[in-house]
Amino acid sequence: MRQKEKETMETGIIGMGRMGSKMAERLRKGGHKVVSYDRSADTPRDVDSLSALIEALPTPRIVWIMVPAGEPTDSMVEQLAGQLEAGDLVIDGGNTCYRDDEGHAKTLVDKGIHFMDCGVSGGVWGSSRGYALMAGGSREDFDMVKPLLETLKPDDENGLVYAGPVGAGHYAKMIHNGIEYGMMQALGEGFATMMRSPYIEDPGKVMTSWRSGSVVASWLLDLLADAFSKDPTLSEMPPVANESGEAKWMVESAMELGVPTPVTGASLQVRQMSRGGADDVLRAVSYMRAEFGGHVTKK
Amino acid sequence: MRQKEKETMETGIIGMGRMGSKMAERLRKGGHKVVSYDRSADTPRDVDSLSALIEALPTPRIVWIMVPAGEPTDSMVEQLAGQLEAGDLVIDGGNTCYRDDEGHAKTLVDKGIHFMDCGVSGGVWGSSRGYALMAGGSREDFDMVKPLLETLKPDDENGLVYAGPVGAGHYAKMIHNGIEYGMMQALGEGFATMMRSPYIEDPGKVMTSWRSGSVVASWLLDLLADAFSKDPTLSEMPPVANESGEAKWMVESAMELGVPTPVTGASLQVRQMSRGGADDVLRAVSYMRAEFGGHVTKK
Repeated sequence: MRQKEKETMETGIIGMGRMGSKMAERLRKGGHKVVSYDRSADTPRDVDSLSALIEALPTPRIVWIMVPAGEPTDSMVEQLAGQLEAGDLVIDGGNTCYRDDEGHAKTLVDKGIHFMDCGVSGGVWGSSRGYALMAGGSREDFDMVKPLLETLKPDDENGLVYAGPVGAGHYAKMIHNGIEYGMMQALGEGFATMMRSPYIEDPGKVMTSWRSGSVVASWLLDLLADAFSKDPTLSEMPPVANESGEAKWMVESAMELGVPTPVTGASLQVRQMSRGGADDVLRAVSYMRAEFGGHVTKK
Repeated sequence: MRQKEKETMETGIIGMGRMGSKMAERLRKGGHKVVSYDRSADTPRDVDSLSALIEALPTPRIVWIMVPAGEPTDSMVEQLAGQLEAGDLVIDGGNTCYRDDEGHAKTLVDKGIHFMDCGVSGGVWGSSRGYALMAGGSREDFDMVKPLLETLKPDDENGLVYAGPVGAGHYAKMIHNGIEYGMMQALGEGFATMMRSPYIEDPGKVMTSWRSGSVVASWLLDLLADAFSKDPTLSEMPPVANESGEAKWMVESAMELGVPTPVTGASLQVRQMSRGGADDVLRAVSYMRAEFGGHVTKK
């Protein structure tokens, strides 16, 4: 029988990066016992091998994977399928694409090992503010690990949701991050327009004032206000933005489902353009403009 | 000499609609004396004519215009220019387009009457939470009316900004509302995608959970969560959204300034499409598809 309704639990965390290490911190503060492992000996960790982690945990084991999405997570699922026992539970708390969850689940379930996917939002602030958690998997597994989730989430009524079956946790996190792209781009467009407008003396001051009483008050605006306090015109940041996949997956899924998402798509594309994604378009456009204008292109 | 550093002031408010009446409430709670006028006898008002309002105020008078943007505001500025005295101050707190402020200012300044434009955000919640205020005009006028602005704004360090010369207050409010369009559309796209996804059991429950600990936590998300609590699938709301001008003006200004604003533009265009704005496009597209496919269009 699995432990149920137990206030404190034991869990293993694999991957002591920015997310894993802070989650361990919050879980320990909440009275849980955490055994940590990271493949790098330079990273603070409790044990120095996966087998040591598995040995240190009581059965049925609960193991969080907090390593980068893609190959590192794929490989860790394979290793855990080979080393854990039937009845154990693996939670992928990374930013895995929801399409990969079914495969991971199958690899584990074939050995009788349970699988949950859990979207975790909160970044470096999660340890103190609590993490927003979106869980996918069976209701039984969700209920079993609830004491851990309740500790990780913020100390109010929100911040934790059972989203649906395997894949739903990462699907919800993907949507969450896609929305984040659009909100960030919206704030950015407002800032950029004010920067060039002759009317506005100090765009950062205007935006900071919106933190109270305004309809756009938000955590993202708070973070931006913090940036303005250090770099009032944001000129020290290079005008390039990276992406980590979620908006792209969301737009792909939405297209498949027949839902137009022009704002999420444009937010993603602006970031892609900032990394040269439209350079060939612009070369073609400029060649055609030159042809219209009758200009000779210099070699 | 104008009154300065006075804690409580007297002011007139023209237009006792949703915004004006609640602003009067908050000003009175803050100890200020307010004389209200509305052209409709059905609306609670202190005086029943503009001349009575002007007579009731001590000089130099401070008069807020809180009537709809466009013709109602244009006409009120004209009337005030004819009835106020040199040294009086008119504040347009409505959603006037920044391009109209210079004309309004000129009409008044020709008679020695001062003019300020003030963007006011907060909707029906402003009376209790305080209003986010963005003021345009001279520094001297701003400093003079500061006791009123300090009362209207929320009770913390944010929510009030001197944005720049005449026009800057409405320009800032326009940008604010443009950002609001993008943030709302981003949240909407996430909801819509989850509604069609087989993974997510209850999109409203997922989104409500994001109110704490998540990067998309925002006042708009709080308002949406409130809607979910009454209408879990939002199906009772018709799929049509109106617009009041600000996003359109922002996109126009941004285009003029050479700032691409695809998210603000797309948010606006989705609303326009919801009201049939793309119907002729779709007719043309469907005719062309029929031609490609060799179908005969039935009369």
